[in-house]
Amino acid sequence: MRVEELTSAEFAKFMRKSPVAFVPFGATEAHGPHLPLGTDSLQPEALCDALADRLDGLVFPPVRYGHHSSTRNMPGTMALSYDTLRSLTKDILESLERNGVSRAVIVSGHAGSLHLAALRDAAEDFVRRSPMRLMVLTDYDIAYRYPLPEEKDWPDGHGGIVETSRILAIRPDLVKDKRPRGLFQDKRFMIVANPETCMPEGMVGDATKASAELGGKVNAFILDRLAELVERNLME
Amino acid sequence: MRVEELTSAEFAKFMRKSPVAFVPFGATEAHGPHLPLGTDSLQPEALCDALADRLDGLVFPPVRYGHHSSTRNMPGTMALSYDTLRSLTKDILESLERNGVSRAVIVSGHAGSLHLAALRDAAEDFVRRSPMRLMVLTDYDIAYRYPLPEEKDWPDGHGGIVETSRILAIRPDLVKDKRPRGLFQDKRFMIVANPETCMPEGMVGDATKASAELGGKVNAFILDRLAELVERNLME
Amino acid sequence: MRVEELTSAEFAKFMRKSPVAFVPFGATEAHGPHLPLGTDSLQPEALCDALADRLDGLVFPPVRYGHHSSTRNMPGTMALSYDTLRSLTKDILESLERNGVSRAVIVSGHAGSLHLAALRDAAEDFVRRSPMRLMVLTDYDIAYRYPLPEEKDWPDGHGGIVETSRILAIRPDLVKDKRPRGLFQDKRFMIVANPETCMPEGMVGDATKASAELGGKVNAFILDRLAELVERNLME
Amino acid sequence: MRVEELTSAEFAKFMRKSPVAFVPFGATEAHGPHLPLGTDSLQPEALCDALADRLDGLVFPPVRYGHHSSTRNMPGTMALSYDTLRSLTKDILESLERNGVSRAVIVSGHAGSLHLAALRDAAEDFVRRSPMRLMVLTDYDIAYRYPLPEEKDWPDGHGGIVETSRILAIRPDLVKDKRPRGLFQDKRFMIVANPETCMPEGMVGDATKASAELGGKVNAFILDRLAELVERNLME
Amino acid sequence: MRVEELTSAEFAKFMRKSPVAFVPFGATEAHGPHLPLGTDSLQPEALCDALADRLDGLVFPPVRYGHHSSTRNMPGTMALSYDTLRSLTKDILESLERNGVSRAVIVSGHAGSLHLAALRDAAEDFVRRSPMRLMVLTDYDIAYRYPLPEEKDWPDGHGGIVETSRILAIRPDLVKDKRPRGLFQDKRFMIVANPETCMPEGMVGDATKASAELGGKVNAFILDRLAELVERNLME
Amino acid sequence: MRVEELTSAEFAKFMRKSPVAFVPFGATEAHGPHLPLGTDSLQPEALCDALADRLDGLVFPPVRYGHHSSTRNMPGTMALSYDTLRSLTKDILESLERNGVSRAVIVSGHAGSLHLAALRDAAEDFVRRSPMRLMVLTDYDIAYRYPLPEEKDWPDGHGGIVETSRILAIRPDLVKDKRPRGLFQDKRFMIVANPETCMPEGMVGDATKASAELGGKVNAFILDRLAELVERNLME
Repeated sequence: MRVEELTSAEFAKFMRKSPVAFVPFGATEAHGPHLPLGTDSLQPEALCDALADRLDGLVFPPVRYGHHSSTRNMPGTMALSYDTLRSLTKDILESLERNGVSRAVIVSGHAGSLHLAALRDAAEDFVRRSPMRLMVLTDYDIAYRYPLPEEKDWPDGHGGIVETSRILAIRPDLVKDKRPRGLFQDKRFMIVANPETCMPEGMVGDATKASAELGGKVNAFILDRLAELVERNLME
Repeated sequence: MRVEELTSAEFAKFMRKSPVAFVPFGATEAHGPHLPLGTDSLQPEALCDALADRLDGLVFPPVRYGHHSSTRNMPGTMALSYDTLRSLTKDILESLERNGVSRAVIVSGHAGSLHLAALRDAAEDFVRRSPMRLMVLTDYDIAYRYPLPEEKDWPDGHGGIVETSRILAIRPDLVKDKRPRGLFQDKRFMIVANPETCMPEGMVGDATKASAELGGKVNAFILDRLAELVERNLME
Repeated sequence: MRVEELTSAEFAKFMRKSPVAFVPFGATEAHGPHLPLGTDSLQPEALCDALADRLDGLVFPPVRYGHHSSTRNMPGTMALSYDTLRSLTKDILESLERNGVSRAVIVSGHAGSLHLAALRDAAEDFVRRSPMRLMVLTDYDIAYRYPLPEEKDWPDGHGGIVETSRILAIRPDLVKDKRPRGLFQDKRFMIVANPETCMPEGMVGDATKASAELGGKVNAFILDRLAELVERNLME
Repeated sequence: MRVEELTSAEFAKFMRKSPVAFVPFGATEAHGPHLPLGTDSLQPEALCDALADRLDGLVFPPVRYGHHSSTRNMPGTMALSYDTLRSLTKDILESLERNGVSRAVIVSGHAGSLHLAALRDAAEDFVRRSPMRLMVLTDYDIAYRYPLPEEKDWPDGHGGIVETSRILAIRPDLVKDKRPRGLFQDKRFMIVANPETCMPEGMVGDATKASAELGGKVNAFILDRLAELVERNLME
Repeated sequence: MRVEELTSAEFAKFMRKSPVAFVPFGATEAHGPHLPLGTDSLQPEALCDALADRLDGLVFPPVRYGHHSSTRNMPGTMALSYDTLRSLTKDILESLERNGVSRAVIVSGHAGSLHLAALRDAAEDFVRRSPMRLMVLTDYDIAYRYPLPEEKDWPDGHGGIVETSRILAIRPDLVKDKRPRGLFQDKRFMIVANPETCMPEGMVGDATKASAELGGKVNAFILDRLAELVERNLME
Repeated sequence: MRVEELTSAEFAKFMRKSPVAFVPFGATEAHGPHLPLGTDSLQPEALCDALADRLDGLVFPPVRYGHHSSTRNMPGTMALSYDTLRSLTKDILESLERNGVSRAVIVSGHAGSLHLAALRDAAEDFVRRSPMRLMVLTDYDIAYRYPLPEEKDWPDGHGGIVETSRILAIRPDLVKDKRPRGLFQDKRFMIVANPETCMPEGMVGDATKASAELGGKVNAFILDRLAELVERNLME
């Protein structure tokens, strides 16, 4: 159930069931030559819809802008500052509380360390003031637990086999047929003004091996694991 | 063309044409018993899609949270602070600039005075530092110029005949058949903690007279006028 | 009674009557070739003095700096940022509360939309935490309700017939004899770095028709209406 | 010449002479049972008027709110936060610069250490970015250099003999006939929530010995010394 | 060479060699029943001293407060907010630049994700404005690459075998003889107000196996690897 | 007892005695050609250690960065902004409170007026929310009460006879044998971008007369006076 499609009265009625609130945090970010800029929005939005279906929860409107370090200078990346993203998270959490939400899950499609730090910083501060039961995670915390055949030469990452496969399963029309391989160039702890040079191909891993079938399996794996976690954490 | 659906390379190629960037700013807000909470997102997103089609522009990802004063305490309203909304606008403008955008239009579906002030505050500051040609408006600045038969008893406003008609033209499945009439209760310059009492029906105007036909006309009127303004302001 | 002229003990004694506190917010802003830079300070200060006389209230020290968009680059305009003005308003409201004020009226002589937004933003936030009964308005919200003969060719505005007349009634020595006519040049939603071009004459309306007599009537009209509103809102 | 009384054009014309800008920073603060709450506004405003007369300078609109530590809880004290006062100072300095001011003097009537720190903090930051020649002082930096007969039992301070005498010379109608003596109670470096206990009489010194004559001498002394400093610092 | 022990003139002379600046960021944090609260300060300070010796660099004064999430409520933990830590980092980087430093390494003893995010956030912003060559790391990024015999039952972490061994090598007098074993209790993405429950023993790993000998080896390993990285990154 | 050397459990046990917490605030600042950059850290750290010994208190980790105005551009000075220093103080005070500290003393080695204002600003705000008994001072508030033979030609100040003598008593190895004399050049209330010109010698006073013996006496004088004040203020 998408909050955006409910009237105020329907929403108020639904809230009497104390549903779990799912808030998808996406991003607009370069994802290599083969994946769309909305890749990190598509994944958590599809996941939250599926979770809400299964657990009779509510999906709140998505956020489609995030914080980006390494891809910041690549064409199409739209980057919020840490502070903007944290304030946005804080305001959304406070609005959830004002609406009587008592259990919530923030799912971030983007897994950048500062991006996640902004979400967690807001969340840690919030739970000190609120009794809300709250989870914050990126679906990639779970995705990378899916047992893949090892790819020694092409360790998987941003825009790689897992991500490409997942988008093939969600929106195949948006994935290019020609898919690259890319390696991550370690910066050895240097903080640089051109961090995009760490990804010469704009992505990391072997996307030639991606498939909608694998993507479907990974998506189902994440959905099952996360639904179980939500039930244990928030609904018992 | 939606930025979210382009790859980084496609986006970079499209940018060579110096397209106008359209950024729809929506909201999640109570809109009476008959309209969905996403009403203020649906309108500017549909409008920006149509504008981009007509003018060969680019639609950037929508923002679906805004600032709300009078409806803040109504079920389903999600409210950002002024500062969060302003920072978000600032960061989006700076990201547009980093991506080489030289002409942009921010279209806000919500017309609250502090909401618009936040957008304009960020924009005024931005244009002092940037050569970007920039428009900021709410589609209601134009919508209310559409010549309606006068409704003395039910002066139109939030969730009234114009807004209901427009949503009937965009997403009729989300509008309830039972539609109310409401009057605005003037607060006589009082600043109060329960501002929602200014709208006892949660809306203002006579929505019983709304129709998809009228909505279609208003939407076309806005599209024509705004396309013309964009051409004169940004494309000549 | 002006707070500035009372001793601490006299103030404390006066406070036992729970008087209404009036706080005039002025500005230092270009007002065409005929009006002084302090125009927006003179009006609310005179009004607050008269209101306090009539309603046995207290006038707190004036603020004489505000936020300015369109006149920002004109000679003599002194402009605060939105944040400074909001903080100032917040601190004044909190000081009023610490002093035991339970009813207050902020009267702004300047009517810029971001200027008023800053005052209201601070006030909305404040009333959520405080039981104070609070009004925030610009005297122009009332002034423009005064029935003037229609001036189709010279729609009235900043520095026009009403404002010039009011200053003629308050401080005629500060008004130049040679008074202009000016038209507002619509920017069609453009946000520009040189917004002063919207007022080529530095003012809007037909100031040649201004008179002290008209100004006196408008001032009396505002005083009467506002005194009545204050009584109904705060003193019943 | 008071900026508030000039039109925009008159101001622009006057600016061609590169006049020194004087900005009086006052305060609204309890000053014992005998002095008005506006004491700290009256002094720098009178001084700036006299300085501008003598040196053909411009007086900008006064600020009448400041930062207060020890008197914060006394009736009638209106207190800004450090940040608000600093932002206000910053915005005024930047507006001066935008108006072409190249020499300026901020004169603060209040001499609290955090109050002055806020002014200086803004000023130090400003001069790193601006070529403006800028002085920041409180008139009490000079007042206490005036040779008084020593008062061992009643060391002079806030609301004492100097301050009472100065107000007697400026606005005798606002000074009560019954004047107190008070001692400062040292807090021995304690930071306390009730700092007003350091002044049981609400003032410090022996105000019974104050006179308009002495006040006139002190005021003239300050004017002479400061005019000389301004000439040496800013006009050579 | 410790900056604190040099005079201004000696410092200026040393700077002519363009030395690498090392800035140790420590913390004050509970580290189990056996390790001192200054554990995270001792490690990077010893490391920076050794690096500066080997590479003829300068050690700047240590910071001994950091950001803490999981141990925040444990006795003795002193926690800065993200913003304070980021501002501190920013100010130190800008002071380094003002002093002519062109190569710098920030070494953090604490490895919390928000703590490191604060350092990196400041650093990423800084390098966009400055040509300084800058590394930011925690010594634990390297420490955990040291090949340890696997401890399946007691996976190593905060206060575990590596950290205890390192402190045994640096300040054995501060390590208690009785050393615990602890397991990390996964919170399954919950953000909670009592995060310390993730470490019932206050530490993670098997500290009973710690030894000064192992600590010496790990410290030497880190020193060698990091010295090599600094040479390649900053000195070639 | 240094907090850094205690385990979490030892700290918790010690806290049962409600000890006074001493927090030394140092600085890294040019102190003339003869004194080390850490001069302002050495003094309060030694003093806090001695105070804690005498009064059975706890010394918290030192801060070694401060705010600097006049020496900001001298080699080796590391300067925090006012806001960073205030936030740091605030966070430390809140951490003390979270740890159950009920009496605390902040001792600052640096006595700059904005530096002290930042500490006091944080402290004044804090005590309005907390019952903690709190002292904030610089040891120079006491040092300058020590009766010195008068030095008319070389009035003492930054890096002068008192400060040099104190460092000679604490760390004689860090003081150069060749010691200067310097005069303070009054800026006559000018706020300038090159404030270091107020100290052509980088110091103020006659350091040629400094001695370890005098330093020892001054240090003992401060220790005695301050211990007595702490007992009266916090321990009775």
